Amino acid sequence: MPDRRDKGVYRSRLARCQEVMSKRGLDALFLAPGANMYYLSGFLEEASERLLTLIVPQTGEPFFIVPELYEEQVRSSSWVENLVSWKDSRDPKAALSAAMKQTPNRYQAIGVDSRMWSRFLLMLLAVAPDARFEDAASVMNDLRIRKAPEEVELLERSAEIADAAFSEMLKECREGIREKEVATEIVHQLRRLGADGIAFEPVASSGPNAALPHYRSGDRKLQRGDLVVLDFGCLYRGYNSDITRTVAIGSSDDEKKKVHSIVRSAQEEACQRAAEGMEAQSLDGVAREIIEDAGYGRFFIHRTGHGIGLEIHEEPYIVAGNSVKLAEGMAFSVEPGIYVPGQYGVRIEDIVTMEAGKARRLNKCTRELMIL
Amino acid sequence: MPDRRDKGVYRSRLARCQEVMSKRGLDALFLAPGANMYYLSGFLEEASERLLTLIVPQTGEPFFIVPELYEEQVRSSSWVENLVSWKDSRDPKAALSAAMKQTPNRYQAIGVDSRMWSRFLLMLLAVAPDARFEDAASVMNDLRIRKAPEEVELLERSAEIADAAFSEMLKECREGIREKEVATEIVHQLRRLGADGIAFEPVASSGPNAALPHYRSGDRKLQRGDLVVLDFGCLYRGYNSDITRTVAIGSSDDEKKKVHSIVRSAQEEACQRAAEGMEAQSLDGVAREIIEDAGYGRFFIHRTGHGIGLEIHEEPYIVAGNSVKLAEGMAFSVEPGIYVPGQYGVRIEDIVTMEAGKARRLNKCTRELMIL
Repeated sequence: MPDRRDKGVYRSRLARCQEVMSKRGLDALFLAPGANMYYLSGFLEEASERLLTLIVPQTGEPFFIVPELYEEQVRSSSWVENLVSWKDSRDPKAALSAAMKQTPNRYQAIGVDSRMWSRFLLMLLAVAPDARFEDAASVMNDLRIRKAPEEVELLERSAEIADAAFSEMLKECREGIREKEVATEIVHQLRRLGADGIAFEPVASSGPNAALPHYRSGDRKLQRGDLVVLDFGCLYRGYNSDITRTVAIGSSDDEKKKVHSIVRSAQEEACQRAAEGMEAQSLDGVAREIIEDAGYGRFFIHRTGHGIGLEIHEEPYIVAGNSVKLAEGMAFSVEPGIYVPGQYGVRIEDIVTMEAGKARRLNKCTRELMIL
Repeated sequence: MPDRRDKGVYRSRLARCQEVMSKRGLDALFLAPGANMYYLSGFLEEASERLLTLIVPQTGEPFFIVPELYEEQVRSSSWVENLVSWKDSRDPKAALSAAMKQTPNRYQAIGVDSRMWSRFLLMLLAVAPDARFEDAASVMNDLRIRKAPEEVELLERSAEIADAAFSEMLKECREGIREKEVATEIVHQLRRLGADGIAFEPVASSGPNAALPHYRSGDRKLQRGDLVVLDFGCLYRGYNSDITRTVAIGSSDDEKKKVHSIVRSAQEEACQRAAEGMEAQSLDGVAREIIEDAGYGRFFIHRTGHGIGLEIHEEPYIVAGNSVKLAEGMAFSVEPGIYVPGQYGVRIEDIVTMEAGKARRLNKCTRELMIL
């Protein structure tokens, strides 16, 4: 992320934002702590029960409504100088109401951060009952879907940390260790290697648990013959990484080897064929067709990928029905999988960025079936 | 959390929920992944961009709208049997709309999870433009503010893990180590000792950084004479812990010792005087008065505490303006602090539960100023 004193980057992001707002007829955006606020202001914070919002009018300067005890942190990390602060002992709705009245023309059409807690949108609805509200994603996704070179650099650094953590973690990943211990080791390695935090609670799912695509980890001990799905990522200066590899413990039977190889082909082919101008749904089709042709179509029960950046899941989603065209600067995962209920699961995932018309992989770890 | 087969606990929670809904005139609650969904259904999951909601009608059975790839996980962890699933390639709004039409009478008054992403509330507003929406906190806080004995047990276990991690972490906390390394060690110890994850990114703020109450950690190395604020907690079966201690590196001057002792007295006194029937704001006053009388009132810039349970911050907030009366089963933090900008900060925090009319501390680590 640019330094707060590097106002130029933020000024140009703001200008593009206000341009898109004007096209969409939005008078103001109300952004919540998280990706959108960070992207435009340089202030990174988690959502909380205290009202903290960045208000971006269609013209003029953005301003914060901020709990008093965050004031100094906002001032020291954001280029945005206008702050309205409120005390813990007061109702934040008053601050919101006052902010709305500061503007010469009341806002009529308001874009609300997708991830703003409903608690705050309900406050906004109460304070501005006649306004029209829509998802600010219509503006913010437009801005954020194509990454600038300085963003790709941070995604790359984040991916490098994940790759390095994968190598380190393999030393601990063996028969008899519990899934949870593997997850703990992953988190430790990510942080030790420079991550600011984890992108999500790691998946270390073994044996039949690996057939549940969103299972995380539990008390099960890794057993000889298991396939283990390892899916994790970290945060680096706000940017996420996300990698999945499937390894075998001790040995692997022919069926599992075959299924791993099908998933690997599907993943490889999708990475190879991703091209400027291709629709996201066509890329989903590339991976899906290979798995369907191999007879496992009904076991590939999720989309092929998701965009990644300041959020772990963002546009472009690589999914049937999404006609967004792949373009320079887009970053997304390619992660087909096969899940045989009650038996095993396989998934392989890399993050790619679109560069010079093609997909470049940010993750370099081997995709071969490693037998540990 | 009760086992999913222990339907009795969930049935009685549901009955109480529907009773409160009836009093408040709410036809249905739409709950998001997180504390509320877990409390009523036993299914624990993080918020994501895929629509996943538990719908609780005022009478009759609750049901889920769930992305297809979560279906098996919901079935295996929740007692709620009614699921409407939707495919990744479809618009979830259709599922939402269909669910609304399933009911003989359309919902007119809807309680929305405080933390549901605005993206989904906007969908609801589009699907049910004539309905009245309010914060479901009006119902859920009522249910969750007083913890049942099985919940206090989990809070206690969560606090024990945090206490044990504090002791382990002290071994690494010394002159020359970076704040970030301290934070990494805290996370590792919490997980190693049985935590399912962290409650929030730890605070390990040293020297002048400790004067920023929501600073986390950075590259600064701990220096002789520093005060270091260590504030962290973990998740254990959904329940949060949260502890703060302030330690000194190598030595401490008289002013810092004095300030530490003022904060310690304020914290001690507030824990002692918390009593059944006392208003939350009066307890805030107890801690505040001691710090004000010592001449540091303007440096105590946040509330005295927050409730804790399935959320790290929930009711009751121990803050001016909150007239909620302390009652059996309530659990909250007591955490006064003094922050001298640019110089140093001190905070001491324990979680207490109201039992037999008084506050019982769940955290047992020493509150003396440790010089490391």
